[in-house]
Amino acid sequence: MAVYTSITREELTQWLKRYSIGSLIDMQGILTGVENTNYFVTTTEGQFVLTIFELLQATELPFYLNFMAHLANHGIPCPRPVADLDDSYLGELCGKPASLVSKLRGRSVTAPSETQCARVGAMLANMHRAGHSFPPTIDNPRGTKWQRFAAEKVMPFLSVDERALLQQEMHDQAQRPAGLPRGVVHADLFRDNVLFEGEQVGGVIDFYFAGGDDWLFDLAVTTNDWCMTSPGVFDQVRQIAMLGSYDQVRALTDAEKRAWPIMLRAAALRFWLSRLYDFHLPRQGEMVIPHDPEHFRIVLDAHRRNRHAWPIG
Amino acid sequence: MAVYTSITREELTQWLKRYSIGSLIDMQGILTGVENTNYFVTTTEGQFVLTIFELLQATELPFYLNFMAHLANHGIPCPRPVADLDDSYLGELCGKPASLVSKLRGRSVTAPSETQCARVGAMLANMHRAGHSFPPTIDNPRGTKWQRFAAEKVMPFLSVDERALLQQEMHDQAQRPAGLPRGVVHADLFRDNVLFEGEQVGGVIDFYFAGGDDWLFDLAVTTNDWCMTSPGVFDQVRQIAMLGSYDQVRALTDAEKRAWPIMLRAAALRFWLSRLYDFHLPRQGEMVIPHDPEHFRIVLDAHRRNRHAWPIG
Repeated sequence: MAVYTSITREELTQWLKRYSIGSLIDMQGILTGVENTNYFVTTTEGQFVLTIFELLQATELPFYLNFMAHLANHGIPCPRPVADLDDSYLGELCGKPASLVSKLRGRSVTAPSETQCARVGAMLANMHRAGHSFPPTIDNPRGTKWQRFAAEKVMPFLSVDERALLQQEMHDQAQRPAGLPRGVVHADLFRDNVLFEGEQVGGVIDFYFAGGDDWLFDLAVTTNDWCMTSPGVFDQVRQIAMLGSYDQVRALTDAEKRAWPIMLRAAALRFWLSRLYDFHLPRQGEMVIPHDPEHFRIVLDAHRRNRHAWPIG
Repeated sequence: MAVYTSITREELTQWLKRYSIGSLIDMQGILTGVENTNYFVTTTEGQFVLTIFELLQATELPFYLNFMAHLANHGIPCPRPVADLDDSYLGELCGKPASLVSKLRGRSVTAPSETQCARVGAMLANMHRAGHSFPPTIDNPRGTKWQRFAAEKVMPFLSVDERALLQQEMHDQAQRPAGLPRGVVHADLFRDNVLFEGEQVGGVIDFYFAGGDDWLFDLAVTTNDWCMTSPGVFDQVRQIAMLGSYDQVRALTDAEKRAWPIMLRAAALRFWLSRLYDFHLPRQGEMVIPHDPEHFRIVLDAHRRNRHAWPIG
């Protein structure tokens, strides 16, 4: 929750000359950034978001920026990277990689309505369809390989019951079916990453966990966050709204519907693990209060007991 | 001023399945189209403009669509073509080339303020800077070659005085200096092609006369339309606002400043000629009332008499 790299008005004014978006009127640090430094930038020509990348390397960034540009070109309401006069989406500011994207309208919601869940389902399906022609050259950075690494690291901090749950689930996930439809997934489509204007999706943000994975995994991550009344307890109305809308835009295969229970667990496991990792092994100088891992332990445990079948049709 | 090609809701609903922008909610023919058929299209995901091209061929269109996409990627507020699931900006509807672009906000103004003229000047300069990296593979379609053709065609319809003016100006334009800074120009940035939200440029539209030419020609076309109180009479306040803002974003060379008087005449000649041509040689089945050519004859005549020097510095 911080601006890690401070820039001056003069630095930014100078830097903006590399673009065709007018001159600086106002800049404002965004305090909610977790991994990067972000500023709202208002110029004579419009409103933008400046991101200074604190962790991702310049070599990794074209994948994310090009993916956002690809989605924006297909009409998905995501931040659109702005090219500079050399036609590059990626610049450098204070010795760090930096980019400008369009500012989206709207606000995130904490208690989404049935309609909003339906909108997010449809938007996610459209994102998958639009992204189909974008090669997933980077795998989900929190995929199986990372999970095995993280599980080993956090194991010493866990209670006996937690260890058993983690080991059992990692073992069971080896049964997750192969060959499901896949592409680049957002992989982090929580409520704080969607902006609404009323009931309309104004934008989807924060693509820096994107990578190649099963599309169904993306839907499970999203459903786990948007459609519960309490940890592990689905609101059937919102869940059916989201899944039904998704299915209407991109019809799920039978194999995907069969894989739904294990995928809900895969999505819960991924966030339980990353939260355990961030909680027990915080990065040096970390300024963000880690999320409580307990939430996703409960969700995973509930999913193991309830084995939610695909709820439609 | 017409919808030349009518499509049904069912045709459009079907056609939209090739895109990732949701399903059709509403469609509405736009009556102000001059050369193409346009519809406002509202889907579950947003608002778009559908253009069915009545005259331009599918082979010519990638230049215009790619140019708009290029400008939009650089933050210029122009219609952004939407790519279909095959990553193409160009489709086919009713056997004609067709494309979807983002709908822009705002309205055109007939009596622009000093501030609005300044905004348009700055935006045009930014458009030229952003377009610098886009190769002008198509020349201004109403350039010298077309003008010689049109002059020959309209000559029989003109009075003795008009003939003398046209011949003299065509002769004088041979002296227009070569080697000025150039790129793709909009070439038709009249007041009806800029949308404002208050004093802010919301969008610039109608790129189908774009092509390679001197940037100064674009500025002269724009100034001739935006900055006059009556035909041929400049409002110095608005003119200086527009030219000063342009110059601040892209500094004009001395050669450009010296070329200003002849370029104002070149811009007036181009529209006098095309209006004469449309007036005396209307296309068969033309449903548009041609503009009165007289306006630009007066402007040209006034420019020849007044020889407006570059008014700043």
